[in-house]
This record gives sequence, structure tokens and C-alpha cells, in this order.
Amino acid sequence: MGGDHGVSVVVPGAIEGARTFDVALRLVGDPALITPVLDSIDTSNLDVEILPASDVIGMDEHPAQAVRRKPQSSIVVALRAVKDGAADAAVSAGNSGAMMAGSLMILGRIPGIERPAIASYMPSARSRTLVLDLGAVTDPKPLNLVQFALMGKVYAERVLERSDPTIGLLSNGEEPTKGNQLVQQVYPLLVQTSGIRFHGNVEGKDVAMGTVDIVVTDGFTGNVVLKTAEGVATMLTDILREELTNSLPRRVAAFLLRPAFRAVRQRLDYAEIGGAPLLGIDGTVIIAHGRSNERAICNAVGVARRSAEQQLIEGIRSALEEGRAATEAAVGAETV
Amino acid sequence: MGGDHGVSVVVPGAIEGARTFDVALRLVGDPALITPVLDSIDTSNLDVEILPASDVIGMDEHPAQAVRRKPQSSIVVALRAVKDGAADAAVSAGNSGAMMAGSLMILGRIPGIERPAIASYMPSARSRTLVLDLGAVTDPKPLNLVQFALMGKVYAERVLERSDPTIGLLSNGEEPTKGNQLVQQVYPLLVQTSGIRFHGNVEGKDVAMGTVDIVVTDGFTGNVVLKTAEGVATMLTDILREELTNSLPRRVAAFLLRPAFRAVRQRLDYAEIGGAPLLGIDGTVIIAHGRSNERAICNAVGVARRSAEQQLIEGIRSALEEGRAATEAAVGAETV
Repeated sequence: MGGDHGVSVVVPGAIEGARTFDVALRLVGDPALITPVLDSIDTSNLDVEILPASDVIGMDEHPAQAVRRKPQSSIVVALRAVKDGAADAAVSAGNSGAMMAGSLMILGRIPGIERPAIASYMPSARSRTLVLDLGAVTDPKPLNLVQFALMGKVYAERVLERSDPTIGLLSNGEEPTKGNQLVQQVYPLLVQTSGIRFHGNVEGKDVAMGTVDIVVTDGFTGNVVLKTAEGVATMLTDILREELTNSLPRRVAAFLLRPAFRAVRQRLDYAEIGGAPLLGIDGTVIIAHGRSNERAICNAVGVARRSAEQQLIEGIRSALEEGRAATEAAVGAETV
Repeated sequence: MGGDHGVSVVVPGAIEGARTFDVALRLVGDPALITPVLDSIDTSNLDVEILPASDVIGMDEHPAQAVRRKPQSSIVVALRAVKDGAADAAVSAGNSGAMMAGSLMILGRIPGIERPAIASYMPSARSRTLVLDLGAVTDPKPLNLVQFALMGKVYAERVLERSDPTIGLLSNGEEPTKGNQLVQQVYPLLVQTSGIRFHGNVEGKDVAMGTVDIVVTDGFTGNVVLKTAEGVATMLTDILREELTNSLPRRVAAFLLRPAFRAVRQRLDYAEIGGAPLLGIDGTVIIAHGRSNERAICNAVGVARRSAEQQLIEGIRSALEEGRAATEAAVGAETV
């Protein structure tokens, strides 16, 4: 039911995902809205059912309150299906705060995880950089960032197929002494965390350069980085379009280059990326961008399948165990 | 003496600045290095002298220590010239930490200013956005951000000629309730600060979109935003170049579009922007990027001239006076 375009985009996208990634699909929402869209699509040989949900949480509703007040909302019904074992994963392009709040209330955290994080890729020169947290925890403690590093590592290995991924700590300079108080506290903890390949501090430019596989940061800064990158990319595209169309000869030359520009767009397209996992939740939950098109929804279904199949949550449990010494040091540091 | 290219770029750039902006120039550094470059340039009708400084602070030296240990360094001699009234402003492309430390030690803060900030423009779709702080204060108190807003407003009005500039507080969402603890504390203070036009919270994308004239943030986040934007712009340019040159027809079409690409580069070029002022220092100090080319140095000289001429420091004093109620509330909030 979610996303800027609702069922008209989410349903075909999900069906495409079911076919591409061989997934049994449960479409959660209002059958009166879903059925007409579903009837217009070829679903032969697919395992597709509607899981009715009579209510919807709007994009502007207060997340936790809405989850409590609307037990029949599509978000709550979908998460409960994961909890009950009726589904292996939940995907939504709806109210992401409500997905987080609902996940915490219905699925809970993986034991030992203090705060779950939102992780997502950002396009980089080499391939893509996994960045977390993107807004779940705006004022984290050092322990949270150590756990983000461990969870990011498991996700990068199991879902993104990066072997032995490198981890950078986002800072205002590369030197170990750089950073705000939080970063300066986290740095030595990451140095001593076993099971991860800590590269050291990285700067804002390293996200786009792809210097490391994973960038760890607080949710406030992560959100600002994500949106700054989106803003700069949009501005550059707009300026380029303006300059390339302000005379007839330029328009002709630009027309000839359309395939090149299309290739550039594709390399940067968030739709190619799919969804952002909620890492640390005791269940597989994937948030798709509100602006998701069909392709983005399809890819989010793929990410969900791979996360569930690769036993992401079991992996995070093991990594927590392995990194226990550092997390205990972090907790110790906080009580001093 | 500073910058990646030393006297070979700084001297011609400064001479160009002296001519363009009608400035009496004192070149501070080693005469043996400066004189040969100077001799190769037309300085007719210009008031140019060398102010000898026998020492240099390297880019990697510890700022405060270097300033203390090297009283004959070009940075210290230049700042002392401002202190003594021999110069109206200091410009450097050298060690920016040393410029900040030296400015604090030699020139001091404007009375009432707790922490000076580094301010700079970033290119935006409309024109340019002034962002501060960019790294001077990584863990500011609420009071610091209120003062950043006041100083940014004066700079935007007097030096950038923006009348009644709007101010945004960088956050992870536009709603007044969004933000980390710092932002949530600063928001109500900016609402009640007299003499500024507070727009409310802005997101990372608003920096490039030019939603407001001035974006206020802590130095950690500001630095990350600046470098993220640089990184994304570089990545996009690289990807575009790759795609536009990977076949002969594309290379031909791209060749025809060179003027358009040049125009794009110019609209984004940091060299057009000049230098970043240290706001809150009791003297006019402009930091140029280490990578500055001649044009950037020239423009930094222009920024210095305009800052001194427009009595930036007097303006900041008055704005502090006008915004006193909010700054006192901020101090009050901290003591609770």
C-alpha cells in the first residue's frame, strides 16, 4: 500500500520481483485496491496471494502511535506475518519510521543489539558503499557504532557478496586523532574489535570514491550524507541539462549522447539498489524508498530474499559473539 | 608560501588579486623564493612589497605547536601584520589549522564570541550556499551555533551582498522535532534570536538546492557535508567522462559540447569562490583551499578586501548585541 505511487507501482514491482528472484509473494493490503492491479498482470506459475489488511498508516503519521492504534494496518499485518513465520521477510515503501517502530514492537531486537540501524548503499566510483546508520539513531553511544560495524560487515558479506569487507569510520579527517567526541571514542574500540577489517577514519569524499566497503556513522550524519549526495547529484544533472539544451547545436550533440547519459543515470540510480535493511531487528525487514519505481520494488524483493536465505540474522548473532570483547569494552567505557 | 603549489601559484594569483581588486599587497615569506616569481610578472602601478619571513609551517605540522615554535613563519608574520595594523587582512593557502590557531593566539576572538567558525560557500542550483562551521568546532554547544548564525548573517549581508539572508539549521528532517540533541536544543534558540531570518531545519539536499542562503551546523557535520559534495561531484564527472569517451562517435559529440561542459565546471568551480573566512576572529583572516589555483588566490584577495572594507568585524559585534537575548538563553540552558 505504501510509497508515493501505491499499489499501481508496488504490485507490479513486487510481481516482477517474485518472478525474477523466485519468491512466494504475499501482498499485504486492501484487496479491493490490489485485485484490479493484480488482474492486469501476468502471474502465471507464481505463488502470489493477498494478505488482507483493512487499514493503512499514512506517510505523515507518528510512527509508534500509528503502529499501536492500527493493528490492522498493512505494515503491522506484514510484520506480524514475519513474526508468525507466515513470511520470511517484510518489504515496504511506506512510512519508514512506522516500519522501524513496528519492527521493534513486533519482532524485537536480536539479543545483544542495543539499537538497530538503517543501512543502505550509496553509488560510488568503484561500485557501491554501504552506509549505516542512516537515521535510526541520531545520538548513538560508542557501543552502537561498534555494533553497526559488526552488522554492516555481516550484511556486506552475506547479501552483497563482498568477501572480507573493509570498514571506515566517518570523520572530519583521516588521522586517528580526528573526529568529534563520539568518533574519537569509537576509533580505539573498532581497532580492537575482532572479526572486522577496520580501515580507520574516512572522510565524506570516501563515500563516493568507494575507498571502503562499509562506512559507519551516527544516524544524524549518515542521513545528512545521503541527502547531500542526492542533492549534489540532482543539482549537477540539472545544471548539465540546462547547459546542454540552451542552443540548437548543443541540443543535437546532446541528443547523440543520450545513451551515454542513460548509462550514467543507471550507474547512479537508486532503483538499481533496491531496499535498505533494518539491521539488528530479529527478522528480515527491508525498507524501500518512498519514491521507488517498479524496478526498485523488484530489487527490494531480491534483497529481502537474499537476506533471509543467507541467514543474515544468524550471521549477526555470530558476529556479535565474536566481537564481544570490544562491545564489552564499549559498555565499560560508558559506565566510567 | 602555502598551498600545494607554493609561490609559483600564490604570487601570480595575489598580484592578479591586487590589480583586480585594487589592493596594496604585502607578500609574506622568503624573499629568495618570492623575488624571482615577482620579477617575472608585470607589477606596474601596483603597491607590492615583500614582508620577509624566514620560516614556514608545513601542511602536516601540529597547528598550535608550530605557531608557538615558529615566530618567524610566514603565517605568524602575516597575522602579526594584521594585529599591528600594518595589514587589513591576512590570506593564506597554507596549513589552515595553523591559521586558526595563530589567529586565536595573535588576534584573539571578538569579545563575546565563544568559538570562531570556518565559513565557506558551496555551489548550489540557484547560486551558492554559505555553510558554517566547516571543521573548527567539532562538538559545539548550542550557544556556538547561535553565534554561527549571527556571524553567517553578517558575512552574507556585507560580503556576499545578500539582503536579509535566510538561515537553515542542518538536520535529518525538516520538521522542528527532527535532529540530534544539539539541533533540538538550537532550534528554539534560533527561533527567538532577533535580527536573523530563521527558515527552520533543512536537510543535506538543501545545501545544493540553495533553499536558504546560510546553513548552520557543527564543524564535524559541516566538514563531512563539504567533502561528501566534493566527492560526489568528482565521481559524477569521472563517470561522465568515462561514458562520453568510450566510443569515437561519443567522443566527437562530447568534443562539440566542450563549451557546455566548461560552463558547467565554471558554475561548480571552487576557484570562483575564493576563500573561507574565519568568522569570530578579531581581525580579517581568509583561508584559501590548499589546492587553490591562481584564480582562487585572486578571488581570496577579493574576499579579504571586501571583508575588511565592509567592516565585517564591527558588523558581527552589532549582531551579537542584537542577538544577545538568545545567546543568554543558550548560556542559561547550558547551566541548567
